Amino acid sequence: MKKIAIIMGSDSDLPVVSKAADTLKSFGVPFEVHVFSAHRTPDEVRLFAEKARANGFGAVIAAAGMAAHLAGAIAASTTLPVIGIPIKSGNLGGIDALLSTVQMPGGIPVATVAVDGAVNAALLCIEILAVTDEALEKKLLQKRREDAERVLLKNAEIEKQFNN
Amino acid sequence: MKKIAIIMGSDSDLPVVSKAADTLKSFGVPFEVHVFSAHRTPDEVRLFAEKARANGFGAVIAAAGMAAHLAGAIAASTTLPVIGIPIKSGNLGGIDALLSTVQMPGGIPVATVAVDGAVNAALLCIEILAVTDEALEKKLLQKRREDAERVLLKNAEIEKQFNN
Amino acid sequence: MKKIAIIMGSDSDLPVVSKAADTLKSFGVPFEVHVFSAHRTPDEVRLFAEKARANGFGAVIAAAGMAAHLAGAIAASTTLPVIGIPIKSGNLGGIDALLSTVQMPGGIPVATVAVDGAVNAALLCIEILAVTDEALEKKLLQKRREDAERVLLKNAEIEKQFNN
Amino acid sequence: MKKIAIIMGSDSDLPVVSKAADTLKSFGVPFEVHVFSAHRTPDEVRLFAEKARANGFGAVIAAAGMAAHLAGAIAASTTLPVIGIPIKSGNLGGIDALLSTVQMPGGIPVATVAVDGAVNAALLCIEILAVTDEALEKKLLQKRREDAERVLLKNAEIEKQFNN
Amino acid sequence: MKKIAIIMGSDSDLPVVSKAADTLKSFGVPFEVHVFSAHRTPDEVRLFAEKARANGFGAVIAAAGMAAHLAGAIAASTTLPVIGIPIKSGNLGGIDALLSTVQMPGGIPVATVAVDGAVNAALLCIEILAVTDEALEKKLLQKRREDAERVLLKNAEIEKQFNN
Amino acid sequence: MKKIAIIMGSDSDLPVVSKAADTLKSFGVPFEVHVFSAHRTPDEVRLFAEKARANGFGAVIAAAGMAAHLAGAIAASTTLPVIGIPIKSGNLGGIDALLSTVQMPGGIPVATVAVDGAVNAALLCIEILAVTDEALEKKLLQKRREDAERVLLKNAEIEKQFNN
Amino acid sequence: MKKIAIIMGSDSDLPVVSKAADTLKSFGVPFEVHVFSAHRTPDEVRLFAEKARANGFGAVIAAAGMAAHLAGAIAASTTLPVIGIPIKSGNLGGIDALLSTVQMPGGIPVATVAVDGAVNAALLCIEILAVTDEALEKKLLQKRREDAERVLLKNAEIEKQFNN
Amino acid sequence: MKKIAIIMGSDSDLPVVSKAADTLKSFGVPFEVHVFSAHRTPDEVRLFAEKARANGFGAVIAAAGMAAHLAGAIAASTTLPVIGIPIKSGNLGGIDALLSTVQMPGGIPVATVAVDGAVNAALLCIEILAVTDEALEKKLLQKRREDAERVLLKNAEIEKQFNN
Repeated sequence: MKKIAIIMGSDSDLPVVSKAADTLKSFGVPFEVHVFSAHRTPDEVRLFAEKARANGFGAVIAAAGMAAHLAGAIAASTTLPVIGIPIKSGNLGGIDALLSTVQMPGGIPVATVAVDGAVNAALLCIEILAVTDEALEKKLLQKRREDAERVLLKNAEIEKQFNN
Repeated sequence: MKKIAIIMGSDSDLPVVSKAADTLKSFGVPFEVHVFSAHRTPDEVRLFAEKARANGFGAVIAAAGMAAHLAGAIAASTTLPVIGIPIKSGNLGGIDALLSTVQMPGGIPVATVAVDGAVNAALLCIEILAVTDEALEKKLLQKRREDAERVLLKNAEIEKQFNN
Repeated sequence: MKKIAIIMGSDSDLPVVSKAADTLKSFGVPFEVHVFSAHRTPDEVRLFAEKARANGFGAVIAAAGMAAHLAGAIAASTTLPVIGIPIKSGNLGGIDALLSTVQMPGGIPVATVAVDGAVNAALLCIEILAVTDEALEKKLLQKRREDAERVLLKNAEIEKQFNN
Repeated sequence: MKKIAIIMGSDSDLPVVSKAADTLKSFGVPFEVHVFSAHRTPDEVRLFAEKARANGFGAVIAAAGMAAHLAGAIAASTTLPVIGIPIKSGNLGGIDALLSTVQMPGGIPVATVAVDGAVNAALLCIEILAVTDEALEKKLLQKRREDAERVLLKNAEIEKQFNN
Repeated sequence: MKKIAIIMGSDSDLPVVSKAADTLKSFGVPFEVHVFSAHRTPDEVRLFAEKARANGFGAVIAAAGMAAHLAGAIAASTTLPVIGIPIKSGNLGGIDALLSTVQMPGGIPVATVAVDGAVNAALLCIEILAVTDEALEKKLLQKRREDAERVLLKNAEIEKQFNN
Repeated sequence: MKKIAIIMGSDSDLPVVSKAADTLKSFGVPFEVHVFSAHRTPDEVRLFAEKARANGFGAVIAAAGMAAHLAGAIAASTTLPVIGIPIKSGNLGGIDALLSTVQMPGGIPVATVAVDGAVNAALLCIEILAVTDEALEKKLLQKRREDAERVLLKNAEIEKQFNN
Repeated sequence: MKKIAIIMGSDSDLPVVSKAADTLKSFGVPFEVHVFSAHRTPDEVRLFAEKARANGFGAVIAAAGMAAHLAGAIAASTTLPVIGIPIKSGNLGGIDALLSTVQMPGGIPVATVAVDGAVNAALLCIEILAVTDEALEKKLLQKRREDAERVLLKNAEIEKQFNN
Repeated sequence: MKKIAIIMGSDSDLPVVSKAADTLKSFGVPFEVHVFSAHRTPDEVRLFAEKARANGFGAVIAAAGMAAHLAGAIAASTTLPVIGIPIKSGNLGGIDALLSTVQMPGGIPVATVAVDGAVNAALLCIEILAVTDEALEKKLLQKRREDAERVLLKNAEIEKQFNN
């Protein structure tokens, strides 16, 4: 199975980003985690991105805050799907990172998820791998069922509390 | 090769969305275009989404404006990757559609591109198919080179105009 | 008397949503509370909405955060009035939920209240029932008078503190 | 059948507001249209609101732009459901009118629709009347079916154009 | 000397609003403080505003949060200058109150100060009275000098700390 | 009677600002119009402001766009009431000018009106002069009545068109 | 004298960017203009930036729209001052480009000017060169005087039109 | 070597601004720190700015919050490069200070950094001095290398934690 790369622009993003790692692990999807900064270590970003496909990766998750250029910088150097997580950081609630990640000009797409949306970034990678991997798709369906059951359980609790 | 589905919430989105179709066509990627509304024809949306994988689709593009629920509604009923295009429509410049598309809660991801970013939505689908399709990846690289050459050509023109 | 349905997208919305329940209870208006997610349990949402009128409901309150599709999804499957409460959740102060709830395209209305405006959502339902229920309208007038008296009491206190 | 009142803050709002009138007319719902300004003719607003129920109205639509106080001012003087249409006017795209209409403090609700959302304001009124009016509910269902059919027709056209 | 009226929409605004009272007191300007709500006690608001000039007031400060209609409602019923203080309240940082207060349509002005800008609201009233009151103007100049001296003192401290 | 000063930061603001002049003229209030830029001619701004009171002015209107510092710069050098008109200019709809004008720190107030709100800026000045000028207050009341009558006339037209 | 580099992300930015070139030309400051895209031609961007100092440049102007990464990408590869011009492009008025340009994380600064602020970007470069170039500083002072005189001329015209 | 001036609008900005001082100190760049308010001590601001060049300064950092006019006011009175730090202060997250600082009209540029971006403001000044100071440029390169190494070290830690 292809690996997923999780790149964060700063180790301060780890508390959010680790949820992506947890999600991939729970699906048995292999992954690597790295800290590369689009601005402080641009060469590492470029080299990693250029070789990502050859190195067995199937998709790249890039998480960064403020003027978040990391996902775009990676996308510029690979044809793998790049998923961008805008990280809330600083004073503007993450809207700066969201716009810096999602408003990519035509030609170099970044698949953007919600501010701090690390779980969904991982699920998106799994969905991408599952396009050609039936076993993985089964796991996604199973996770959906479990999520639904969790909602229904909460519903049952709350119905008991309020409706009788 | 798997097909791409392009769903728009209203036929008024066609001028933007047709660029996604053009892009897919230029790559030789098969696709279908449909108009299904998350609010006016929710059953068609659900039925399409539920059968999309079985019907040979590899990814779904969903374009909608304002309180844009279409991408999320499709994502709720398929494990295929869903790409959301927020459409500028109404008075708020598309920020309503952007937030309605990208801020998905954990569990059901939507890969969001820029407001009216139809070309990138198509490219993202091609990147997804290209994860396991070397020929397609070659075409992506070729397109990147052509885009770069077009920039360099423009650069040459402008250098001639300004620098001498 | 017709019942009011209160649907929340996640049980984490309960601290806000319970104020709607308290308000309905204080008016003696029957209600039910449920947790159904537009994205995780879309079938439950649809089934509930489709049968809501037949099941004796007169209006539906839907509370959800982020890309809040719940109210719109319910509104798409019922002709009952649907009141949307945008829930503050995540990093953007609730403006994402507000726009996702209020900016509904023509054809499927959602009556939107303020971010976290659970009390007003309940009052709106009571006003809707009171259109044809004089006793209920009397209670609304009585509540208005009490609210006004509470303001006047506070005014008296503050006048005493500042003006003499 | 109860009447619907459509109040606009300025006659310049008529091009938007007239769509609410058209919608009500197409459903055979009786209505009145007035121009009353919360700031220029506050007495007319108050008097109208105070007598609206006694005068046979079942709901009030209030449309205003900028610091849009009209819906709130009417809601303060009636227990009828008040639907607010934020009108785009001036330079801020209507976000000023939206926040001025929807962010009502607890106690006095305004059911807010999208910026310039006149059709949905009318539909909401019809839904409110239809809570106790089966014939009207039938017409709503019929309209929903027609809207859906229109989408499906557009879908058929576009499918023919793109998919073959 | 004419009095200043300070009206707040809710007693929860007192911690902010009391700074306006303190400022007026320090200038020896007579004032009254009241709690009147544009939505819960609209009659008190109107009656107060209509008689404010006759009752010896020279200007009115109105403080309110969210869909802040108080200043506009008062301005509609008096020709006295009305100063609006948008109060931060709820989840949107006060931008809702700011737009609801400042974006008044032509004809009924509200002199708006910063979100929670109670001191400046009071100073504005004093400036208005000082247009025809030389003694008061002297006090304003004196206060300006003291404010400037306070800055220069802080400057001296910080210069000592950093520059040597 | 004291004069009103209208200062604009650029002659390109004239189409908006001239409405303030028209309003003052229609009330018979004497005024002067000047173009002074807070950034290009700061000395003229300061000198004008410092002498404004001595030169017979009763209030100053300052209109500027983008990072609109003009009103604040004038307010820093006079104790006269300063009314700020944020001018829409450039790409951000005037929200930059609005925040730059209204968010003044404590000590130096600017009475801010709506984006491009020139008429209200003039009316505010007239209200300020009218605090001690009964004849002027009569004219304000008369203008209010005329504004109200204009609304009622429009109302009559629209009632005739829609209600019969 | 050191040269200024003007880099734009797309030749569609030329109408704005050419004003920077005009300004530099009017000051006799040598410059080059290039089209390099952070995403389409990242290598050209990096190579240019890495050699800019050695090639005789004293500062770099970078203009880009949407998720504007160009200025940051250049700044990451040179220690020359980099001036960022956020270009309005797409539907969001340039706020996306502004935040993507200005919100740089600590370590790699970008000196950001207003949306479409090409003239000021050029002036900033001239100010930077003028730190050690007295002749250039004289020209800046001269330009300031001319700008001031132009304002005063406009002032004279408008004073003649309004004040007599 | 030329000195850098750090001016803050209020001593409450010191916790942010002191990081600029620390950065300059670590580079051995001489600097002065002052508290001058554009609104409370405009004369000190102007006098400082007018003499800054003659007094041996090479650039000025100006930090202010809310309607942040300080940087623009300084820029109006000097031809030295002025770097603006928008300070988060009050309720709007610093977006008011950002727009008030960056949206300068043509003619008087302010080089704006991120909200609270004091370190980058200092680095920008160092870059400006380093245009003609090779030793300083060496230190900048050294700092870049250290920043990069710190990222790589963090990367090594996180790689060890996650990838094996």
